[in-house]
Amino acid sequence: MKPWIALLLLPSLAAAAPPGVDGARLVGHLEALSAFGRNPEGGVSRVAYSEADRAGREYVLGLMRAAGLEASIDAAGNLVGRRAGRTTGLRPIVIGSHIDSVPSGGNYDGDVGSLAAIEVAQVLRERGIALRHPLEVIVFSNEEGVMLGSGALAGTVDAARLDSVSQSGRTVRDGVRFIGGDPERLEGVRREPGSIAGYLELHIEQGAVLDREHVPIGVVEGIVGILDSEVVVDGFANHAGTTPMAERHDALLSAARFIEAVHATVTGEPGRQVGTVGWVRAEPGAYNVVPGRVTLGLEIRDLDTRRIEALFAKIRAGANEIGRRDGTAFRFQRTLLTPGAPTDPSLQALIAASAARLGLASRPLPSGAGHDAQEMARLGPIGMIFIPSVDGISHSPRERSRPAEIENGANVLLESLRALDDDRRR
Amino acid sequence: MKPWIALLLLPSLAAAAPPGVDGARLVGHLEALSAFGRNPEGGVSRVAYSEADRAGREYVLGLMRAAGLEASIDAAGNLVGRRAGRTTGLRPIVIGSHIDSVPSGGNYDGDVGSLAAIEVAQVLRERGIALRHPLEVIVFSNEEGVMLGSGALAGTVDAARLDSVSQSGRTVRDGVRFIGGDPERLEGVRREPGSIAGYLELHIEQGAVLDREHVPIGVVEGIVGILDSEVVVDGFANHAGTTPMAERHDALLSAARFIEAVHATVTGEPGRQVGTVGWVRAEPGAYNVVPGRVTLGLEIRDLDTRRIEALFAKIRAGANEIGRRDGTAFRFQRTLLTPGAPTDPSLQALIAASAARLGLASRPLPSGAGHDAQEMARLGPIGMIFIPSVDGISHSPRERSRPAEIENGANVLLESLRALDDDRRR
Repeated sequence: MKPWIALLLLPSLAAAAPPGVDGARLVGHLEALSAFGRNPEGGVSRVAYSEADRAGREYVLGLMRAAGLEASIDAAGNLVGRRAGRTTGLRPIVIGSHIDSVPSGGNYDGDVGSLAAIEVAQVLRERGIALRHPLEVIVFSNEEGVMLGSGALAGTVDAARLDSVSQSGRTVRDGVRFIGGDPERLEGVRREPGSIAGYLELHIEQGAVLDREHVPIGVVEGIVGILDSEVVVDGFANHAGTTPMAERHDALLSAARFIEAVHATVTGEPGRQVGTVGWVRAEPGAYNVVPGRVTLGLEIRDLDTRRIEALFAKIRAGANEIGRRDGTAFRFQRTLLTPGAPTDPSLQALIAASAARLGLASRPLPSGAGHDAQEMARLGPIGMIFIPSVDGISHSPRERSRPAEIENGANVLLESLRALDDDRRR
Repeated sequence: MKPWIALLLLPSLAAAAPPGVDGARLVGHLEALSAFGRNPEGGVSRVAYSEADRAGREYVLGLMRAAGLEASIDAAGNLVGRRAGRTTGLRPIVIGSHIDSVPSGGNYDGDVGSLAAIEVAQVLRERGIALRHPLEVIVFSNEEGVMLGSGALAGTVDAARLDSVSQSGRTVRDGVRFIGGDPERLEGVRREPGSIAGYLELHIEQGAVLDREHVPIGVVEGIVGILDSEVVVDGFANHAGTTPMAERHDALLSAARFIEAVHATVTGEPGRQVGTVGWVRAEPGAYNVVPGRVTLGLEIRDLDTRRIEALFAKIRAGANEIGRRDGTAFRFQRTLLTPGAPTDPSLQALIAASAARLGLASRPLPSGAGHDAQEMARLGPIGMIFIPSVDGISHSPRERSRPAEIENGANVLLESLRALDDDRRR
């Protein structure tokens, strides 16, 4: 090569340093993993504790070992791959995600973060890079169902979660056994708050923000809190032919007004809060009967748990107003409250800086979906890296992220891990 | 008796003439019939073609014979009781109703009209009154399900109706056989338009108008027409956590707006039309998914079929407007159209006059529910007499009409029958 050409190339070589992941290898691993549980639409149905899940996990365990990780299955069924650090006494840094899917899911949700974490370990090994901290790559068990694996580390798994029936048809308890864990020894998996130096997770956005704005990297501000409430509307069932309009107490009409009011309340103030009525049932449920009772499911999400509570209070007040006017009655039964899990501000900054060093634009955004990171937040500082989902589609065989985007994400994970490892305060 | 007492009594005796029905006997028969299929709530579950139906019909057949009727079961499973007229060549007058019930039904819907018709025949016999016209008392089979018995007389029963599965679990075809009919010979039951001098049916209102206004007799203006349409709303299913409010195409939100619009359209003009959304289903139907598709059932009723069509057109236009704004799409699939069946104006006048002669107030009103009379309207002029339903409750074990109201109704049926029989134009 002529000397002046080498000079021209130097700046780009400098920009690419430190050496990044092998994108083609990572995409190849994703491709191979997609064979386990492949569905006719080209996605996967690899629900936790299915045969496909077990086989896919076996494949991933092999990748971990090939990457030089000391890998095993813990009592919660997590795949845990360890790599020693060079400084004694430091707490481990954990990176990872999950490989179980929803029914009729896609090939990116969880898989990208899991295989990128292994790729990062592989690169560290190949380049002979020794981190100061011990590194743990964890592929958590049953994220999509009940966040079992990360919950076990965080110590949040109770008997009800173990006894619930998973999408595989097996109870979680039997499922954990099926994939090589031991539900009777979950307590041994539990870790103490403060016991990790940090947790980093790469994941697809599952929304359309990054794709629409052509921003390759999302720095997750936090995982939104979720409030679910069953709402019962009681009216009076009556013959739809013989009951004049003015004499009805139509529970479905009140429910319709409620659904509109939820939308108006949630969109009535600035912010990224969302509110959804996702299911509804009218009883008795026939053409010729005015519905006497409607039951529906309300969900509110926001990063700020207090804001969720304020919206819920406003929605309840609006519902009571509708009931007063219609001669119907609303009852609310809260079934779930997951508090919002903010990511660590210093890790947000670290991820944004890592992306910038790689020449990648980034923007902050909330995670509307739940992730293992929210359980890990109980143990130490968490950071999450998002990459674009084409058209925002997720939980669908049409879920997709482009190879270059996946490689970018894995490189930011590697770079962030190294920066976190270098941080002398940790 | 002292002559002046007789004088004092004379006007009331005159008002009571001709002699009326035996109210206590009629109520006793209703009481006895209520034993067949009695449910724990005190009503009956005597769905067509059930054991209870067959046993109740056997009891009623005995009452017919005790009333001097020449009674038999026709090929459609109708109980038909005949009484000859004194003038040859006249077409029969038909009176009757049904005794099958809805699941968890009451003791008055159908039963009152059936047993009152038999009571009328009994009174005619006991008083030695010979009508000019032949009289037929018919207890129609399977009114609540598919109006099979009256449909067979009107010639409207097709193979689909015979093959449908009834509430008893039996197909209508098997059910007809079960109660002593012969589904292969239905054609023999069919009657020609113009073949009856008239049809009179006494029935409970199943609505609250008469009870609220303390009017003992309703003169039915007609049986409302019914349009049923399945409505499909297509939006786009998406993750309820990651999809911002502004980017949703929420099929359930559009459906809610539609339900409100149906109410506004139907109540937006004067008249007694009713519109109902009685059932709804959202898919996929989970807390955390924005509904991608909603299917619901719309029903419109009015006496005037053209008005039903006009309302339906208006509702469709409104739905398309909602879809345009929300980025969703509405599809309508009409599943049923029963045209309105007006009662005969001269029979309306005759019933009102009969009630007045008995000192009973009456008022015109539509029938919001369907009745065998609407099938009989194909064969000749029909008239219907309503009595109050306490609190308008029907199709419920809590359905009730007071003994005095039942007696009033039976007397108006008797008086109307005699007036119709006396009409020399018939």
